[in-house]
Amino acid sequence: MLFTDLARSLPATIPFVGPEALERRMGVKFRARLGANESVFGPSPMVLEAMAEAARESWAYGDPEQYELKRAIADHHGIGMENIAIGEGIDGLLGHLVHLAAVPGDRVVTSYGAYPTFNYHVAGHGARLDFVPYRADDHEDPEALAARARDVRPKLLYFANPDNPTGSVHDAATIGRLIDAVPEETILVLDEAYSDLAPDGSLPPISLMRPNLLRFRTFSKAYGMAGVRVAYVVGEPAAIAQFDKVRNHFGVSRMAQAGALAALADQDHLRATIIRIAHAREELAAIARRANMTPLPSATNFVAIDCGGNGDYARTLLAAVLKRGVFIRMPGVEPLDRMIRVSVGTPDDLALFEDALMGAIAEVGRPTAT
Amino acid sequence: MLFTDLARSLPATIPFVGPEALERRMGVKFRARLGANESVFGPSPMVLEAMAEAARESWAYGDPEQYELKRAIADHHGIGMENIAIGEGIDGLLGHLVHLAAVPGDRVVTSYGAYPTFNYHVAGHGARLDFVPYRADDHEDPEALAARARDVRPKLLYFANPDNPTGSVHDAATIGRLIDAVPEETILVLDEAYSDLAPDGSLPPISLMRPNLLRFRTFSKAYGMAGVRVAYVVGEPAAIAQFDKVRNHFGVSRMAQAGALAALADQDHLRATIIRIAHAREELAAIARRANMTPLPSATNFVAIDCGGNGDYARTLLAAVLKRGVFIRMPGVEPLDRMIRVSVGTPDDLALFEDALMGAIAEVGRPTAT
Repeated sequence: MLFTDLARSLPATIPFVGPEALERRMGVKFRARLGANESVFGPSPMVLEAMAEAARESWAYGDPEQYELKRAIADHHGIGMENIAIGEGIDGLLGHLVHLAAVPGDRVVTSYGAYPTFNYHVAGHGARLDFVPYRADDHEDPEALAARARDVRPKLLYFANPDNPTGSVHDAATIGRLIDAVPEETILVLDEAYSDLAPDGSLPPISLMRPNLLRFRTFSKAYGMAGVRVAYVVGEPAAIAQFDKVRNHFGVSRMAQAGALAALADQDHLRATIIRIAHAREELAAIARRANMTPLPSATNFVAIDCGGNGDYARTLLAAVLKRGVFIRMPGVEPLDRMIRVSVGTPDDLALFEDALMGAIAEVGRPTAT
Repeated sequence: MLFTDLARSLPATIPFVGPEALERRMGVKFRARLGANESVFGPSPMVLEAMAEAARESWAYGDPEQYELKRAIADHHGIGMENIAIGEGIDGLLGHLVHLAAVPGDRVVTSYGAYPTFNYHVAGHGARLDFVPYRADDHEDPEALAARARDVRPKLLYFANPDNPTGSVHDAATIGRLIDAVPEETILVLDEAYSDLAPDGSLPPISLMRPNLLRFRTFSKAYGMAGVRVAYVVGEPAAIAQFDKVRNHFGVSRMAQAGALAALADQDHLRATIIRIAHAREELAAIARRANMTPLPSATNFVAIDCGGNGDYARTLLAAVLKRGVFIRMPGVEPLDRMIRVSVGTPDDLALFEDALMGAIAEVGRPTAT
């Protein structure tokens, strides 16, 4: 037989269908791209300059040790280079981590409705997912996750803070308790993709290290470099060293390394972007309220909007928004699927979204009382 | 225990140490970079333009279906989009393939001295490598490989044509016989990274498809885009579809997709580069002969030079060349390790190499007769 039993058993799937694919299938052209939690505010101009310069040198492979970028990340956080592994986005790093930590049949715990790409990699390595529901307040439930972990002794426990798709955040003390509560044979996968947007007091110090704690950071969100593909994971040296055993050593492109280096050097741009994101988030919340819907508080670059109905209503509404040329997404499973999820955008983007949302509501009506 | 038994058993390794790392360790600055089979002639100016433009849009993820690039590659070869999967270099695609095809304990056959990164991925998935020696004429041995495959029934059989690190090439009829001779439960991994440089008559038509045949092509070599990270694999749809089950969907950056699209569109640049590479190859062979060493015929963008001694001699000579500021590499195992491997370069690069080689020979002497 060609290919493994596991491979043959897996569906050919795409965790997130891209807006380009939706455009092709629906025959629309999106006028606003607010579905993938990208930053329309873009990276620093210094990043563009650094990448254009690196493009001219891209006949050569990038440094497989990513020395300069790793040095800069280490200095930025005040940690050692041996605490950092760099990869092709958090997605790429998560794939390597599951490869390193789980064999077929192993258990993995996550929240029901959390990051689908993590689940995709877990399935791709034949491990079994165990789901813990979100709390009634649409936050991940750290106590229940830790209790489940003590029960099933998983290889990995996934937790995002701030969270996608709800936008919620826990405070550092809560995260600290979760870190303490996870069994020592379980790796806590702390996805901090939105950490640059987290309010003060919600992130444990980056210097807090444990043998079974890995924290994932990215240049895709606040730094505005989603299409460049560069992220990193922070942890104790023994855990970090594992990535060198399976990673694609030349996978982080020359342009990505140069761009991320320039991004780190322009913290003023990052601060200005964070302010723009906060304003856009407020405007998104105001739009939701004007539409008589409920915006969830967000510590990220998107706002989840409770449409007031069930999943079928939100899916119908989402389709009507998409049809109007505005790309947004929504969570896939109950009870989160009563929401739509809208990324921040420029004032023009948000105006297009408001128009599309109002038009969609006019078309599909209000949710019936449940 | 954190991490799998397999992961803990693997060495933290880098299949190829980068020239940047050598510079840091040796305290030298390379004046010529001729060790990684990159193309100093670079990509088309249209590629640089396309990537600079894509950089400005890189706040957005690249298309995870890579539709436009896949369409262009399909048209270029006259095959279907369903025959193509695109990834972060051949290295990235090989990692996915081993993941899809082999479980711990499975057998994999390759040539002794062939591509180390393939071996790295095989080890990373716990499969067992079976090595077949190169022929006495420094070509891979297709008959012996096929015989070994019929004997051990491996999941994968690796074959590079043209070959790295020797630069040798087999004709299409020989490759056709290999394709026919491989057991039907074995995937033939046909690494054609150097296909753009192969002489007429050495590549089977790309339309020749088998359920167990996968052919790997890249933009890293003749197209001059090694640092960009984009390559593809061609095969029957059932095999190609497997990659969608485990790949990093957003892993091929926006700049990489745009750059590769532009590269395909400028076949004039490719043709001109191929001519420049051929001239540089001749000059490299001439340098080797002036040094009283034996250049191997090459169908690639590098020349393997038989130094006339054993592996210890070649390693000593290599170190002396590196010390003189010229980055080259050499094969790692006998009997190929009697060679050094020098990538093509500009006339200036080659002059620097000749100086360094002559200086190195003056320093370390001639090999003693063996």
